[in-house]
Amino acid sequence: MIVDSAVYKGGQRVSVDCHVHDYGKLRAAAAEQDGFVWLGLYQPSEHELSEVAEAFGLHDLAVEDAFKAHQRPKLELYGDSLFLVLKTLWYVDEDDAVETGEINMFVGHDFVITVRHGRGSQLQTARKYLEDTANVLTHGPSAVVYAVCDTVVDAYLEVVEDLQEDVDEVEASVFSNERTKDSARIYTLKREIAEVRRAVLPLREPMRRFSSGLVPGVDADAAPFYRDVVDHLTQAAEVVDTLDTLLSGAFDAHLASISVQQNDDMRKISAGAAIVVVPTLIAGVYGMNFEHMPELAWQYGYAFALLLMFGSSGVLFWFFKRSGWL
Amino acid sequence: MIVDSAVYKGGQRVSVDCHVHDYGKLRAAAAEQDGFVWLGLYQPSEHELSEVAEAFGLHDLAVEDAFKAHQRPKLELYGDSLFLVLKTLWYVDEDDAVETGEINMFVGHDFVITVRHGRGSQLQTARKYLEDTANVLTHGPSAVVYAVCDTVVDAYLEVVEDLQEDVDEVEASVFSNERTKDSARIYTLKREIAEVRRAVLPLREPMRRFSSGLVPGVDADAAPFYRDVVDHLTQAAEVVDTLDTLLSGAFDAHLASISVQQNDDMRKISAGAAIVVVPTLIAGVYGMNFEHMPELAWQYGYAFALLLMFGSSGVLFWFFKRSGWL
Amino acid sequence: MIVDSAVYKGGQRVSVDCHVHDYGKLRAAAAEQDGFVWLGLYQPSEHELSEVAEAFGLHDLAVEDAFKAHQRPKLELYGDSLFLVLKTLWYVDEDDAVETGEINMFVGHDFVITVRHGRGSQLQTARKYLEDTANVLTHGPSAVVYAVCDTVVDAYLEVVEDLQEDVDEVEASVFSNERTKDSARIYTLKREIAEVRRAVLPLREPMRRFSSGLVPGVDADAAPFYRDVVDHLTQAAEVVDTLDTLLSGAFDAHLASISVQQNDDMRKISAGAAIVVVPTLIAGVYGMNFEHMPELAWQYGYAFALLLMFGSSGVLFWFFKRSGWL
Amino acid sequence: MIVDSAVYKGGQRVSVDCHVHDYGKLRAAAAEQDGFVWLGLYQPSEHELSEVAEAFGLHDLAVEDAFKAHQRPKLELYGDSLFLVLKTLWYVDEDDAVETGEINMFVGHDFVITVRHGRGSQLQTARKYLEDTANVLTHGPSAVVYAVCDTVVDAYLEVVEDLQEDVDEVEASVFSNERTKDSARIYTLKREIAEVRRAVLPLREPMRRFSSGLVPGVDADAAPFYRDVVDHLTQAAEVVDTLDTLLSGAFDAHLASISVQQNDDMRKISAGAAIVVVPTLIAGVYGMNFEHMPELAWQYGYAFALLLMFGSSGVLFWFFKRSGWL
Amino acid sequence: MIVDSAVYKGGQRVSVDCHVHDYGKLRAAAAEQDGFVWLGLYQPSEHELSEVAEAFGLHDLAVEDAFKAHQRPKLELYGDSLFLVLKTLWYVDEDDAVETGEINMFVGHDFVITVRHGRGSQLQTARKYLEDTANVLTHGPSAVVYAVCDTVVDAYLEVVEDLQEDVDEVEASVFSNERTKDSARIYTLKREIAEVRRAVLPLREPMRRFSSGLVPGVDADAAPFYRDVVDHLTQAAEVVDTLDTLLSGAFDAHLASISVQQNDDMRKISAGAAIVVVPTLIAGVYGMNFEHMPELAWQYGYAFALLLMFGSSGVLFWFFKRSGWL
Repeated sequence: MIVDSAVYKGGQRVSVDCHVHDYGKLRAAAAEQDGFVWLGLYQPSEHELSEVAEAFGLHDLAVEDAFKAHQRPKLELYGDSLFLVLKTLWYVDEDDAVETGEINMFVGHDFVITVRHGRGSQLQTARKYLEDTANVLTHGPSAVVYAVCDTVVDAYLEVVEDLQEDVDEVEASVFSNERTKDSARIYTLKREIAEVRRAVLPLREPMRRFSSGLVPGVDADAAPFYRDVVDHLTQAAEVVDTLDTLLSGAFDAHLASISVQQNDDMRKISAGAAIVVVPTLIAGVYGMNFEHMPELAWQYGYAFALLLMFGSSGVLFWFFKRSGWL
Repeated sequence: MIVDSAVYKGGQRVSVDCHVHDYGKLRAAAAEQDGFVWLGLYQPSEHELSEVAEAFGLHDLAVEDAFKAHQRPKLELYGDSLFLVLKTLWYVDEDDAVETGEINMFVGHDFVITVRHGRGSQLQTARKYLEDTANVLTHGPSAVVYAVCDTVVDAYLEVVEDLQEDVDEVEASVFSNERTKDSARIYTLKREIAEVRRAVLPLREPMRRFSSGLVPGVDADAAPFYRDVVDHLTQAAEVVDTLDTLLSGAFDAHLASISVQQNDDMRKISAGAAIVVVPTLIAGVYGMNFEHMPELAWQYGYAFALLLMFGSSGVLFWFFKRSGWL
Repeated sequence: MIVDSAVYKGGQRVSVDCHVHDYGKLRAAAAEQDGFVWLGLYQPSEHELSEVAEAFGLHDLAVEDAFKAHQRPKLELYGDSLFLVLKTLWYVDEDDAVETGEINMFVGHDFVITVRHGRGSQLQTARKYLEDTANVLTHGPSAVVYAVCDTVVDAYLEVVEDLQEDVDEVEASVFSNERTKDSARIYTLKREIAEVRRAVLPLREPMRRFSSGLVPGVDADAAPFYRDVVDHLTQAAEVVDTLDTLLSGAFDAHLASISVQQNDDMRKISAGAAIVVVPTLIAGVYGMNFEHMPELAWQYGYAFALLLMFGSSGVLFWFFKRSGWL
Repeated sequence: MIVDSAVYKGGQRVSVDCHVHDYGKLRAAAAEQDGFVWLGLYQPSEHELSEVAEAFGLHDLAVEDAFKAHQRPKLELYGDSLFLVLKTLWYVDEDDAVETGEINMFVGHDFVITVRHGRGSQLQTARKYLEDTANVLTHGPSAVVYAVCDTVVDAYLEVVEDLQEDVDEVEASVFSNERTKDSARIYTLKREIAEVRRAVLPLREPMRRFSSGLVPGVDADAAPFYRDVVDHLTQAAEVVDTLDTLLSGAFDAHLASISVQQNDDMRKISAGAAIVVVPTLIAGVYGMNFEHMPELAWQYGYAFALLLMFGSSGVLFWFFKRSGWL
Repeated sequence: MIVDSAVYKGGQRVSVDCHVHDYGKLRAAAAEQDGFVWLGLYQPSEHELSEVAEAFGLHDLAVEDAFKAHQRPKLELYGDSLFLVLKTLWYVDEDDAVETGEINMFVGHDFVITVRHGRGSQLQTARKYLEDTANVLTHGPSAVVYAVCDTVVDAYLEVVEDLQEDVDEVEASVFSNERTKDSARIYTLKREIAEVRRAVLPLREPMRRFSSGLVPGVDADAAPFYRDVVDHLTQAAEVVDTLDTLLSGAFDAHLASISVQQNDDMRKISAGAAIVVVPTLIAGVYGMNFEHMPELAWQYGYAFALLLMFGSSGVLFWFFKRSGWL
C-alpha cells in the first residue's frame, strides 16, 4: 500500500501532476528540479514492491529483505545507494507488552523509499517534522534518514521508560507482604527486554557509521546529529541492561521470599498443631482406666480437666505468639 | 559413494562421455572447455576419497579431515585451492531433536568436490537451483560455494524456528497450573542450542572472509551475497542466544513454581490435618472417665458431641477455604 | 537560576561592572582582558538557557541535552567548543540511598558554563579551590574542567566507601544467627550499585581522551592530572564490581541460611511433637478396656503411668537435645 | 633421567659412538653432519639439567622453569632458541580422573631437548612416528616440535571424549527416577574441566604464532600443520565449554529433581498419615463415655466400627492413589 | 620511617659518610660515583615524604598517592622518572585470611625510593638478593624494580597456594556427611579471592610494558625477566579464577546437600511418627466402649494388644529401614 508519495525540492514539497503509481514520472520530475522523491509504502505486495524496485533500480537482495521483513537491523551499501533496516518498538498498554515492527529504507541521491511493517510507528511524525523544518529537509534524502532514525530511536526510549515502570511494579510486588506470583511477570518482562535488545544493539553499528561521516551520500555535517542518536541508543541499551539485572535480582528476592514464607507457614502450622495436641494428651490421661485416679472422683474434676486443657493451650498460644511463630 | 558428478561450462551442464570414476578424464574435459567439475560424494570410503584426492591434487590434511568428519566449521587455504567445512543441521520432528551432519568442500579453479556426512541436508536443492539459474552458475566454482553455504545457512534458520516453537511450548508448560516435569525438557533444549551454536558461530569467520572479497578465487561481486549469509548467521546466533536466556528464565520460573507448589501442598495438608485433629480432641474429652460429667448423662449427649465435632470441622473447613489454604 | 558568574584573568577573579544577565558584556570584558567567563547555572529555565546559548554560541543539541538532563556521561566536540556531561552522586545517610544529579559543561576558549541539576554536588568547592590556587586557574577554562571533574569523581569514591560500609553491614546481618530479611536490603544495594556504575563507566572514555592530550583546548601538561582522575574512576569501578560480586555471594549465603533455618525448625518441631505423641500413646494404652489389665488395679498405677509418660518425654527430650535437634 | 638421546641427519637416526652423558660430543657429531641432537629427559635432577644447560647454552630462566615444572603453557624466545611449555593430560579410567603432566622443550637449530614430568604422555609415539617418516624428520628440530605438539593435542581430544562420556553418564543419572547423589560427581567433573581448560587455552597463542610462520626456525611450510593443531585445540576448548554448560544445566536439573522429590515425599507422607488418623478419630468417637450411644449396644457394633475404620482408610487410600499422592 | 638508605655503585654498596636524612648529600655522593641511592621508607609521615620529594624532585600527584596509599597497582611516567604502585599480599595463618599492603616506588636514573605500607612483605629479601648478586645490581635502579616486583609477585603465588589449600578444605567439608556451615567459609574465601584479583590483574599492564622494553630507563635485556613476572601474574590470575569457579561449584553442591539433608530428615521424622501413630490407633480401638468386643474379655487380651502394638511398630521399623527412610 502506498501511504504517501511526494517530491521535495529545496526543502519544499512540490506538487507533481501524475498518478501515484507512475514512479518513473515522479523520479523524472524530481531529477528535473534537482529534488528527490520520498515514497512511503506500508506492507506492500510483492508486485507493488517489484514495480518500485524496477523504477528506482533497487538491489534484488534488499528488495527480498524488505518484502520478507524479519531482518535484523543493518546498513547495506549497494553501489551508491543505501539499504537500511530498523526495528520499530511500541508499548501496548492494555497487554503490558512490547510489540515489534520493521522499517526498511532504500536511499539514493534522488529518492528515499520507506517500507513499513507492523501496526505501530507511523512515519507521519517524521514527514511532518521535515516538511515543517525546511532547513533540515534541504539536505535531501539524508535528512529523511536522520528524521526516521531519530523518530524510531526516540520511541525506543519511551518503550524503555514504560518497561522501567513495569519493573518498578514488579519490585513493589516482590517486596510486598502478600503472596504474589511474580515469576511469570518477571519472565515476560525479561522476554520483552530481550526483544528490545535485539532491536537496539545491532542498530548502533549503522548509526556509528553514519556519525563517522564515512557513509557516502550522508553529509559530514550531520555527524553530531547521528552521534546524538547513537547516544540515545547507548542509553536505551544501558537502561535495558540495568533493568535485566534488576529483574534477576527481583527474581532472586522472590525465590527467597517464597522460602521465608514457607518457613513462616511451617512454624505457624506447627504452633497450631501444638495447641491442639497438648489438650488431646490431657484428655488421654483422664481417659485412662486406672481404678485409683483421685481426680476422677472430684466434684469439679471435669471442670479442672477442661481448665487444664484451655490453660495449656493458652500458655502455648502466648508462647508461640511471643516467639513470633504465630 | 558418488552422488552426482558433472561438468559445467558457461552456466550449463555438459555431458561428458566417461565412467563416473574416471576423474582424470572428467577434469580434462572441464579444462578443455574452460568449465569445471562438480563432484558430489556421500560418506566416501577411504579408497574413494584418496582416488579423488590424487586426481584433483587435494592436500593430505584436508582429505583426512574430510574423511574423519567431526571437524569444526572452518576455511583453509592450501595454495590456490580452498577447503571449507560446514556443519549441517536439521530438526527431526518425531524426536523433537536437532541432528548434525557435515559438508566438506574442496574448491579449485576447475573443480568443486563436496563430501557430505550425515543423513540430512541433501545438496540436490543447491545443485538444482544452480542448474536453473545459469547466470549465477556462470561464476564457476565460487557460485557453487555460495549456493551450498546459502542452503546450509537457510536450514539453520529453519532449525532455529523449530527450536523457538519448542521453547514456546516449554514456556506454556512451565506457566500452566499443572505439575509438569519441565527440567528434563529444558535441559535437552539447552543441549540442542549448544549444538546449533557450535555449528553457527565458527562459520561466521569464513563467511566474513568471503564477504570481504579477500579470498582468492571468490568474486568480489559476490560480497553482498556473502554479507547476506553472514546476516542470516548472525540472526541465527542472536535468536539462539535469546532462546538460551529465555530457557534459563523458564527454568528459574519452574524452580519457583515447584517451591510455590510445595508451599500450597503443605498448607492444604495442614488444613486437612486440622479438620481431623480437632474432632479427635473432642472425642478425647468425652472419653475421659470423670464421675461428674453432666453431658455424658444427657439424652442427646452423643448427638451433641457428634454435632460439636462436625461443627468444628465445618468451621475449620470454611476458615481454611476462605484464607486460601484449601 | 544563575548561581555565580565571574570573569577570571591570569588566575584572579576580576570584577566586571555589569548586570548578572548581561552575558554579552561579561564575555566582552573577558575577551578584552584575555581572560574567561565562568557562569554557573542551577536548573535553568528554558528561557535563561537559550539566552546564554545565544550569547556564547552554544550548539542546539547540547543546549537541549543540558536542559532536559538525564543524559549519559559523554564528551562532545562542536567545532572548537566542548560539551561535557557528568553524573553527580551523593549518599543520603537517612535513607541509606545514593542519589543522582547531573552537571553539563560548555567550554570554549573564553568561557565555561556549568549547568547543574539535582540537589547535591555543589560546585562551590571546585570554584573555591581554583580561586585559592591561582597557578592552576591560570590555565583558563581547562583548569575549571579539571577541577569540576576531580570534585565529582572524588565524590564517587566517597559514595563507594559508604556503599562498602552498607555491604559490610549486610554481610554481618546475613551471617548473624538471627532471622533477618536481608534480601530486600541486598536488592536495594544492587540497584544503587547499578546507578553508580552508570555514572562511572561511561565517564572513563571522556577522561581518557583528556588524559591522552588529544582534546583541543585542553593542555597536554594536564595529562597526568586527568590520568589521576581516570585512576580514581577505575578504582571506583573496580570496588563497585567487587561489591556487586560480594552482594551476590551474600545473597547466596542468605538463601542457604534460610534453608538451614528451615531444616533446623523442622527438626525442632518434630522433636517437640515426639515429646507429646509418645505419652499420648501411653495414655491410649491405659485407656484400653481390657478386663485383665493388672496395672489398672495397682494402688499406684496412675502414678506409674504418669511417671512412664514423663519419663518417656524426658528421655526423648534428652535424646533430641544431645543429637542437636532441640 | 635420560630416556633417549640420538642424532638425526637427513631424516635418519645416525649412531654416534659416545657415552649418553657426553653431550658435547653428541652435539659436535650432529654439527659435523649438519644434523641435530634429540635428547629426551624424564624428571631430571637439578644436576643433570644444569649439565645439559651448559652443553647446549640454555637460558637460566628456562632451565629453572623446566626443573620446577608447574608452569603454564607458553612459548618463549631466547635469542635464536625456543623454549616451549606444554601441559600433558591423560584420563585415568579407574579413578574417572584427568591427570596432568608437563613437557618442556628447548629447541635450537641443532638440538631439541624434551623434559617430561608426570607419569603419562610418553614421547615414544612421537619419536617413533618421526623415525618412520623420514620426509617429515628432514625438517629438523621444527619437525620434532610439530610431532610433540600434535601428539599432546591429540591426547587432549581423547581426554575430552572421555569427559564427554562422563557427562553423558551424569546426565543419565540426573534424569533417572532414582535418588542419586550427583552433585559431588558434577563438581568433580567441573574441576577436571577447569584443569583441561588451563592446559588447552594458553597453548593456543603459541600454536597460532607457529602457524603464522613468524617464529624463527620454524618452516613457513609447516603453517597448515600448526593450523591443524590450533583447530584441534579450538575444538577441544569448544567441547569443554559446552560440557561445562551442560554440567551446569544438569546440576540445575538435579536441584529441581530434589525439590520435586521432596514434594512427592511430603504428599506421600501426608496421605499415609491421613489413612491412620481418620480411623483414630473413629476409635476416639466410640471411646466416648456417653450413656446413650446406641451403637455401643449393637450386636455387631464392634464389627461395624472396624468396618467404618477400614472403609474410611480404604476410601482415603483410593482417593490419594487416584490423585497421584500415593 | 626510614628503613634503610644506601648508595650502590657497580653492583656494590658503598658507604657514604652523612646523616641518614641528608638526602641531598646522599644523592650527590651517588651522582659523583655514577651510582644510585636506594632509600627505603616505611609508612612515612607527611613531613618525611615531602622532604624526600623535594630532594629527589618527585611529582606532587605521585607523592600524594604514596602518602595516602590505597591506590590501585599502576605505572605512571613523570618526565624521565617512574612511579610504580604494587599491592602486597600475605596470608595470615591464624585467621585464614589474606592481608593487603602497598609498595610505592619512585625510580629515577640515580635513585630508587620504596615506600612501604602494611605489616607484611618486607623488602629486605629483595635488597639482600641484590646485594648478593652484583651482576644484577649493576643494572642500576631498574635492577631494584625487577627485584621488588619479582619478590612481590612470588608472594602472590604463595598466597594463591594457601588459598588453594583452603578451597580443598572447604571442598572436603562440603562433601563430608556431616552437617556443615560452609556458606560463611565460602563467602570469606570469595572475598579474599576478590582481594587477590584486585592486586594481581591491574599489575599485568605495567609488567607487560616493562617486558615490551618500551619503558624508558628499563633495560631491553630485562625483557625476559619481566616476561617471567608476567607469566607468574597470569598464572596467579588463572588459578584464582579457577578457585573462584570451584567455590561457586562447592556452594551449589552445599545448597544441594542442604536440600537432600532436609529430605532425609523429613523422611526419618515421618517414619518415626508412623511407628508411634499406628499403635496409638490400636490403643484407640481397644479403648472403644462396645459391649460386645470379644478381645476385651480374653485372658491375654491385654498382652495380645501390646503384642499387636509392638508388632506393628516393628514391621513399620523394618519396612522403613529397608526402604532407606530410617
